[in-house]
Amino acid sequence: MLTTRLPSAGFSITIRIAVTADASSIGRLTTCVGEAGAIVTALDVVDSDPTRVVVDLTCDTADSAHADQVVKQLEDQDGVDVRKVSDRTFLLHLGGKIEVSSKVALRNRDELSRAYTPGVARVCMAIAENPADARRLTIKRNTVAVVSDGSAVLGLGNIGPAAAMPVMEGKAALFKRFGGVDAWPVVLDTQDTDEIVRIVKAIAPAYGGINLEDIAAPRCFEIEARLREQLDIPVFHDDQHGTAICVLAALTNALRVVGKQMEDVKVVVSGAGAAGTAIMKLLMRQGVSDIIAYDRNGALHRGMTGLNPSMQWLAEHTNKANYSGDLPGAIAGADVFIGVSAPNLLTGDDIAKMADRSIVFAMANPDPEVDPREARKHAAIVATGRSDQPNQINNVLAFPGVFRGMLDASAEEFTEEMALAAARAIADVVGEDKLNPTVIIPSVFDPRVTPAVAAAIRAVVRGGPAPANAAAASESELEGAPEGIF
Amino acid sequence: MLTTRLPSAGFSITIRIAVTADASSIGRLTTCVGEAGAIVTALDVVDSDPTRVVVDLTCDTADSAHADQVVKQLEDQDGVDVRKVSDRTFLLHLGGKIEVSSKVALRNRDELSRAYTPGVARVCMAIAENPADARRLTIKRNTVAVVSDGSAVLGLGNIGPAAAMPVMEGKAALFKRFGGVDAWPVVLDTQDTDEIVRIVKAIAPAYGGINLEDIAAPRCFEIEARLREQLDIPVFHDDQHGTAICVLAALTNALRVVGKQMEDVKVVVSGAGAAGTAIMKLLMRQGVSDIIAYDRNGALHRGMTGLNPSMQWLAEHTNKANYSGDLPGAIAGADVFIGVSAPNLLTGDDIAKMADRSIVFAMANPDPEVDPREARKHAAIVATGRSDQPNQINNVLAFPGVFRGMLDASAEEFTEEMALAAARAIADVVGEDKLNPTVIIPSVFDPRVTPAVAAAIRAVVRGGPAPANAAAASESELEGAPEGIF
Repeated sequence: MLTTRLPSAGFSITIRIAVTADASSIGRLTTCVGEAGAIVTALDVVDSDPTRVVVDLTCDTADSAHADQVVKQLEDQDGVDVRKVSDRTFLLHLGGKIEVSSKVALRNRDELSRAYTPGVARVCMAIAENPADARRLTIKRNTVAVVSDGSAVLGLGNIGPAAAMPVMEGKAALFKRFGGVDAWPVVLDTQDTDEIVRIVKAIAPAYGGINLEDIAAPRCFEIEARLREQLDIPVFHDDQHGTAICVLAALTNALRVVGKQMEDVKVVVSGAGAAGTAIMKLLMRQGVSDIIAYDRNGALHRGMTGLNPSMQWLAEHTNKANYSGDLPGAIAGADVFIGVSAPNLLTGDDIAKMADRSIVFAMANPDPEVDPREARKHAAIVATGRSDQPNQINNVLAFPGVFRGMLDASAEEFTEEMALAAARAIADVVGEDKLNPTVIIPSVFDPRVTPAVAAAIRAVVRGGPAPANAAAASESELEGAPEGIF
Repeated sequence: MLTTRLPSAGFSITIRIAVTADASSIGRLTTCVGEAGAIVTALDVVDSDPTRVVVDLTCDTADSAHADQVVKQLEDQDGVDVRKVSDRTFLLHLGGKIEVSSKVALRNRDELSRAYTPGVARVCMAIAENPADARRLTIKRNTVAVVSDGSAVLGLGNIGPAAAMPVMEGKAALFKRFGGVDAWPVVLDTQDTDEIVRIVKAIAPAYGGINLEDIAAPRCFEIEARLREQLDIPVFHDDQHGTAICVLAALTNALRVVGKQMEDVKVVVSGAGAAGTAIMKLLMRQGVSDIIAYDRNGALHRGMTGLNPSMQWLAEHTNKANYSGDLPGAIAGADVFIGVSAPNLLTGDDIAKMADRSIVFAMANPDPEVDPREARKHAAIVATGRSDQPNQINNVLAFPGVFRGMLDASAEEFTEEMALAAARAIADVVGEDKLNPTVIIPSVFDPRVTPAVAAAIRAVVRGGPAPANAAAASESELEGAPEGIF
């Protein structure tokens, strides 16, 4: 298991240290840090005199406890004086990560009179007379609300709206960096479904799209469904739809590598919350018919009671053999394991019992359902959500391009067809000649991804060719799914 | 009366024209535009051949009808081919006026892992454990919501949230330009008081302040009062408080010029909506005791029925002599007229009947309560809301500095004391040696204004000296005012 986390830039610290200026003193510092398990990434001299030198030593650590331990080991050295420890992640967050910029100059009276009164009055009246002009004359055409109630933030749980802000600001920064989309964090001090629906509906006129984020299941399904019904702009829930798109993209290429077909594989999904449910619905739409959904309560099967409507639907539409045993039993003989649940549920031995040329997507963060190093001993392809492992399945591949395309095409809703097209576009960025078990999905920094996804979305909105998959479930088969588009 | 509006940059158009290339053809164009009453501001040749020349002629017009007329007069000229007319104000608004920018670089994996997962999780947890850290680690410390229901936008009335966006975006641009404040437009598709209060309360965690904008009276008073009570961040209603601060600043200097005192003057205020009510309350707080409030229904006086609570309070606390006659009668003998109401209610003859060395602030936009050119024949000092007249009373003098100061000092509420301090700061920017009847208030482009206002606000929050005015009404005299802080 990945019990010893690796040092990462997310836990980078800078330590200001004064040491005696003998020939080997700096060497002793870096050796000490290395022995403590951290990785030195920078060393800057900030002051010196004939007998002493003051340096800023920057190093990646594994987590906060590890960082404390590195500092303590330095303090225990003779002749070493630790003066200050700065956490680079916290430094980066001071004052927040986004800002509002004016796109118009306001240098003089003329510019003021065009951007504000009296000139602006005519622009207002034009929109009042023709509401469609809002997309032309306001920020609506490029702006998305990132809406969260703070109830299911990352793996941190229900930490509330204020504490969710760093994630939502980060999301907004990613939207701009990767999609050129202006996104604004809307965190809500309520976790009441009716209230959230009412609020999002009320604030919607300023926006060209709604991105729901980190809202707990099953509330998120109802909120999404009701907003889809009431709004004339697309509603996208990244935890559901973004994840499902990326998983479908990765699975498409993984199946290419192992030479299997969607309609033939047996899939086990661990986690039946927002992400797992959407993944299963989208895979079924793409032709997968043999799925077992696994949850805290076990394999979802017919005959269970007390399930919420979303899980009830899964129990009725998956698990053909009505399996009710444990997770290791479920994956024995399975072709694909997809985990969006909790750390360390499976061992390498469990993976060994899967079908030949098996595929493992263990995406619990930061610690996967199975140690990917163990899984790789038995599975043909292993992917995780981690940036320090091959095949990182990261939503950044999907949401910037999906919204870029929807805004460009003035889409009024997000559809399952768009999700399928986006997944195919992401998969196709990895050319046949580049495809192998360690490269089934493009890097988040691959500049071809967002334009490809956006083009695919625009083609769907403008009535381009529909995704062709003869074996895909017809839409009618998915009817009755209680909430959410997939 | 200002029936013929003057050409302004707010109505600037660019006309692409092809003309025969004889020596005087361009001259004929500019003459034609000038004769039509527009002002040529630029002439650019975009193409030519031996017999023809194509130019972009840019000119300021008075309004849309005038622009149409200018184009028509050009089209009627021999040898003139008008190809395209572009409205510079609309061009400037294409795609909206503000954008969201990332303050952090996201060039590589390390930067991503600090700004987003996994690093961001620690920042979230820090805020969850210590909510006060939100001001340090998120955009809250520099960010203001500009909230409107679109019910009273400029002088345009109830045009709704989408059509209000150009004003709110412009406001956000002004906040950044003049105060370095990040402001975001929150337009609401509801005009229900309870709903607006609930929504603003729910979205508040992301913001360090709330700026209410263009919400109709009397609803705006209740919304403001309830939000003040429920939120721990300042709530400011620019139409009320911003206007009142600027009027008090202008009146302070105007009285210096004419040598009169707040406690001695007789003031008539036309308009008892959001702006008028706040102006009167703040003037009373500063020592003015003789005020008549004038409204559509006449002078507010005791014995009237059917008034809303705000007007009822005014009827009971102003108009000592219980005057109930017409507006010209009310201003006969008055020292100060303040108009925040409707165009052309008074004539020069009415102003002539005011007291000696009278002061006229005729701020209805775009057409003042009295033609300022007529008023100046009789009054010692005339101010308007117009940018093409001396003494423009413009809220841009107040709101950027007020919020700059409140955010800097982590203010939890906006107070009357802050309003008095801000007004004094604005007035004091015009030095005694610069003061005269045409300069009672600084220019909106005077770079000293915002820092002075912000410093005054910070001093109040941090317990600086309170405004000293022996004659000022004690706070207890203003008790019982139903809603709003003043």
